[in-house]
Amino acid sequence: MSKEITPRAQDYSQWYNDLVIKGSLADHSAVRGCMVIKPYGFALWENMRDVLDKMFKDTGHQNAYFPLFIPKSLFEAEEKNAEGFAKECAIVTHYRLKTDPNNKGKLIVDPEAKLEEELVVRPTSEAIIWNTYKGWIQSYRDLPILVNQWANVVRWEMRTRLFLRTAEFLWQEGHTAHATKAEAVEETTKMLDVYADFVENWMALPVIKGVKTPNERFAGAEDTYCIEAMMQDGKALQAGTSHFLGQNFAKAFDVKFSDKNNNLEYVWATSWGVSTRLIGALVMAHSDDQGLVLPPKIAPLQVVIVPIFKGDEQKAAIDAKVTVMMAELKALGVSVKYDDSDNARPGWKFAEYEMKGVPVRIAIGARDLEQNIVEVARRDTKEKANASIDGIGIHVKNLLDEIQQNIFNRAKAFRDDHITEANTWEEFVQLLDTKTGFISAHWDGTPETEDKIKEQTKATIRCIPLDNKQEAGTCILSGNPSTQRVLFARAY
Amino acid sequence: MSKEITPRAQDYSQWYNDLVIKGSLADHSAVRGCMVIKPYGFALWENMRDVLDKMFKDTGHQNAYFPLFIPKSLFEAEEKNAEGFAKECAIVTHYRLKTDPNNKGKLIVDPEAKLEEELVVRPTSEAIIWNTYKGWIQSYRDLPILVNQWANVVRWEMRTRLFLRTAEFLWQEGHTAHATKAEAVEETTKMLDVYADFVENWMALPVIKGVKTPNERFAGAEDTYCIEAMMQDGKALQAGTSHFLGQNFAKAFDVKFSDKNNNLEYVWATSWGVSTRLIGALVMAHSDDQGLVLPPKIAPLQVVIVPIFKGDEQKAAIDAKVTVMMAELKALGVSVKYDDSDNARPGWKFAEYEMKGVPVRIAIGARDLEQNIVEVARRDTKEKANASIDGIGIHVKNLLDEIQQNIFNRAKAFRDDHITEANTWEEFVQLLDTKTGFISAHWDGTPETEDKIKEQTKATIRCIPLDNKQEAGTCILSGNPSTQRVLFARAY
Repeated sequence: MSKEITPRAQDYSQWYNDLVIKGSLADHSAVRGCMVIKPYGFALWENMRDVLDKMFKDTGHQNAYFPLFIPKSLFEAEEKNAEGFAKECAIVTHYRLKTDPNNKGKLIVDPEAKLEEELVVRPTSEAIIWNTYKGWIQSYRDLPILVNQWANVVRWEMRTRLFLRTAEFLWQEGHTAHATKAEAVEETTKMLDVYADFVENWMALPVIKGVKTPNERFAGAEDTYCIEAMMQDGKALQAGTSHFLGQNFAKAFDVKFSDKNNNLEYVWATSWGVSTRLIGALVMAHSDDQGLVLPPKIAPLQVVIVPIFKGDEQKAAIDAKVTVMMAELKALGVSVKYDDSDNARPGWKFAEYEMKGVPVRIAIGARDLEQNIVEVARRDTKEKANASIDGIGIHVKNLLDEIQQNIFNRAKAFRDDHITEANTWEEFVQLLDTKTGFISAHWDGTPETEDKIKEQTKATIRCIPLDNKQEAGTCILSGNPSTQRVLFARAY
Repeated sequence: MSKEITPRAQDYSQWYNDLVIKGSLADHSAVRGCMVIKPYGFALWENMRDVLDKMFKDTGHQNAYFPLFIPKSLFEAEEKNAEGFAKECAIVTHYRLKTDPNNKGKLIVDPEAKLEEELVVRPTSEAIIWNTYKGWIQSYRDLPILVNQWANVVRWEMRTRLFLRTAEFLWQEGHTAHATKAEAVEETTKMLDVYADFVENWMALPVIKGVKTPNERFAGAEDTYCIEAMMQDGKALQAGTSHFLGQNFAKAFDVKFSDKNNNLEYVWATSWGVSTRLIGALVMAHSDDQGLVLPPKIAPLQVVIVPIFKGDEQKAAIDAKVTVMMAELKALGVSVKYDDSDNARPGWKFAEYEMKGVPVRIAIGARDLEQNIVEVARRDTKEKANASIDGIGIHVKNLLDEIQQNIFNRAKAFRDDHITEANTWEEFVQLLDTKTGFISAHWDGTPETEDKIKEQTKATIRCIPLDNKQEAGTCILSGNPSTQRVLFARAY
């Protein structure tokens, strides 16, 4: 096998990197912290995007597009938001290059082409969008505005990792405007539900819905709701966030509407987003030491058929059979590829498609033809079994459903096994060191305690689960009274 | 009517601007030269993008994503390309803001966060992509690479116009790599054909396929093929380009492959793109003084139904009928909206949907119900006719096809009427002043003559048509011998 992956047990971080690169999802680029999303990785993103886009449209949202650049004066209008992102912004200061008089064939920034006002490359678009909404909203009749944008954003990260943390990434950002607080809060939780539905039922990744503590809130939000997923190393990954922004942006950009009684009121806002980071979550949650494991419902390719033959005559017989099988599978909506390329042996191809996480592999040989069977291998469990060619379409279709469910069940069982209660500081610290996963523990509700715990253990409060049981307890660090447990973990 | 459009005859340019803004396609933004694409305009772009994307995939291409930023040293590697774009590049020089010590709540660029190497915001992606391809290509087995990217790009334009010329715009850029020159040239013309097919058969806009003169070539190309469309003011608009790049980028980035005989050869390249500029072309080609006229095949909304009634009883009867009609239309794949909102009168709605270019409007009143008819108005000709509610689905479906064809025929008749031959300089100049459109004239083939003609008349050579008749003649300016006519026009 030409491509080898570092085993998880040996170096989890290197294992992840190997998967992304050798699985043909992405490459590092010549630009610091930016990646190239390769065709196979982008096909995966397209599938995820298309499903999400339909979910957004089914819940009444429309897409639009706002400028990449935000003038500094707009950017700083909502102070908390600006503060939160100021330290990681790419800034455009000039609009022209010129030939270097001292260096033939080279270019320098033209000092005469300095912008009067610097432009921030969007790290998030609340500022430019609320500045625009000001012109769109006069009366309650103009509300709600339910808009989403698919875009690239830039956050200058010092330590980057493919998909998980890159200077540029692709995402969607919903930005909605409402007449009432209740309606905005409803929108916030509705979109959290959409995200949870998508991540669980399409990405096969169980999530915990919760609300962030003030410390972990989006800069400029009144409340940040999140879905948290667990990776195979027990760390948490925030898979999506939905923010109730209150009237903060409306006040910063002076966006008011006249209500039915002709009173001028500030508009209520939400924003919500998921990004290509989800691909990182997908890779880390399901894959193994042989390569990617992709959920059938979003895999770029669901089935690959590999012929095993000697000579043209056998090949022709296999081809004829495969043509029929392909038609049957496609008619059932299954994506399938026949890899009869002659530049690699079957064993090499098997390893390659295992690496790429194609959910089902069908091998078909001359002897199989005589018995009217094929060998069907599933990627998730690596089980192989013979199946009759008659009815192969339905068989594979059902198998894909089974794989989707199995991947989810496996991830859920792992997740549930790795949420542990801690009742004392000693237990808490010991658990962090000896058992990976989330820790459910009492916290006194203060930012100070949260900060101290983070400093001492690198564990953060991932969320206060939405369906949280109320129970009296004492904070693991301060010993002060607490009304509920929260989820702690080290996180990506 | 609340929204008025400047008539074409009065001020063509203002007419265009009115259409874009009052038709809800786009807005100016707070960022110099950048626009906001509004939901209605973006839905149009999505329809166009989806059709093109399918065409690209059907011809074997895959999507990928490359970084927004290009380090200056990579950008300048292909000298002609760099020279061509250097004067209109947005440049990122810093990666952090900090609070202004002299101005509470304000931010300034942190001078300590200056980049070692400046980053160019991509005006086009050949440089970053060919730098990436270097790592993807070793042998002839790695070729061809057939990749497309949907992205935003930035070209710092001094005089901007919504959709037609904006500092940031959305586009797709195909970038392919081939083992032979013949294969690259074939790809170049194949994609030109895809563009022509799309623009003619979906946007209903006739185009002339041609090749650019050296003066008008893409910076870094060996040959630029284009499709040229005519607007209603007779000006030309370049609707798409496909470039044969030779080995220029392979040489600049040292991208070689070993062929079947193990010889190292430079790779051959193409690139091709269309942008949101096409929306500008669409608006200018088909619309009238009442608003947008959109081809049904890409219109965000194909049919709107407006009820005319007094009282709840009439409304209920109409609603019941409309429910059935909607189901019938949707089953035929027609997009339809029932506008029964009570915040506007039918006349206002009629004007609004005319403004937005919805191809078919159906009005249904209480008296119509008695006769089992509705009034069907087509946007292109503004004709109205009664139609039976029985079979309304097929009737409207056929009408949409007819409208699509009529819009194309109208634009083609106009275009053909406005291509005129000029055989002398006097004729040429007079035609430019008295009759709008393209001029077919002999040219001696030199850049010098082309430059002089441009200086004196602002007319440029739009293209040398691909199917050009060869005929002996004399250049309109120099009087030197010429073998064929070329197309001149003033252009957007």
